[in-house]
Amino acid sequence: MNKVVLYMSMSFDGMISGHDDGPGRGLGVNGEALHAWLSDGGISPGSHRPGVGVNAEVFDEMMQTGAVITGRRTFELAGGWGGDHHDGVPVFVLTRQLPDQPAPGHARYVTELESAVAQAKEAAGDRNVLLHGGSAARALLDAGLVDELVIHLVPIILGRGRRLFDDQGHRARNLELVSATEGADVLHLRYRVVSR
Amino acid sequence: MNKVVLYMSMSFDGMISGHDDGPGRGLGVNGEALHAWLSDGGISPGSHRPGVGVNAEVFDEMMQTGAVITGRRTFELAGGWGGDHHDGVPVFVLTRQLPDQPAPGHARYVTELESAVAQAKEAAGDRNVLLHGGSAARALLDAGLVDELVIHLVPIILGRGRRLFDDQGHRARNLELVSATEGADVLHLRYRVVSR
Repeated sequence: MNKVVLYMSMSFDGMISGHDDGPGRGLGVNGEALHAWLSDGGISPGSHRPGVGVNAEVFDEMMQTGAVITGRRTFELAGGWGGDHHDGVPVFVLTRQLPDQPAPGHARYVTELESAVAQAKEAAGDRNVLLHGGSAARALLDAGLVDELVIHLVPIILGRGRRLFDDQGHRARNLELVSATEGADVLHLRYRVVSR
Repeated sequence: MNKVVLYMSMSFDGMISGHDDGPGRGLGVNGEALHAWLSDGGISPGSHRPGVGVNAEVFDEMMQTGAVITGRRTFELAGGWGGDHHDGVPVFVLTRQLPDQPAPGHARYVTELESAVAQAKEAAGDRNVLLHGGSAARALLDAGLVDELVIHLVPIILGRGRRLFDDQGHRARNLELVSATEGADVLHLRYRVVSR
């Protein structure tokens, strides 16, 4: 059975982007530091793949997923990844309201959480599903639809920003640490969601 | 030179206590889970010392500190630790306003951050200073007075509660991971504060 795995870079104080982000602004002041591990020693121009070591392994694992679920905000901030997140796998973009225009490339808009997860798992076959984005993560966690969290914990206190776990009274969950692996300038923490 | 080291148990979503805490309420619903690692296999009745392994080592390290700095809220929630946090070392309790009554036992109230740190370091001699409590931690971090963070990261999402890092626009800090050590049901993360 394939799994839904959340992959997110997070600061030590829980931020997933800097405080001045917005469309066209990228990751904001200090927010860039959250993703610095993605390009350390990069050998592939135009790619975020770190060249070597643990970080490259984690990146490769992400890129071996067979479908993507994300939220509309993350999707638009990323410019829709040009319609192709990786290898042409389908990208399911959660949105409250379907836009007039269809999503570009391999992306499609979906309004129902359960349906998005079912479609993504089906499309991914025996590969896992990559979940990315704060509000998508929170919605799926609350709905008990996330199997694992892989958090790239970046050694920085941002002080301000957008949180992965906001204050909207989300459901309590027990986790189980699967592995803690040190990469260059980042600690990759893999947790299994125990109570769903 | 001795160091000021913050020791705090924190949930994966950044909470240091449950949502219904308050004087007499202890750690609140689910908040108890944050400190479960302190008593696993406990061999010392009346003590929080875990009996064995990594958790016992971390606990012993905390108890080898030569002074304590905390905030008044934490101090009062803990009942002032009966006037003796451990081994009769001095406890410096940060407060905005000096109460009419002196602090009990080995504790004393202080209103100035820098003075509290200077007094605690002096009193601790060649031992480190244990810093504990959310608001004390934030105040000292903002003032550049913290040398290391030892966070006992508990594998639970609380969903609600009181954060270690709140949203009051604190200063950005670079950290450096010193060690990530797995104990029973907890991951001990030690960071050095790089930019102060």
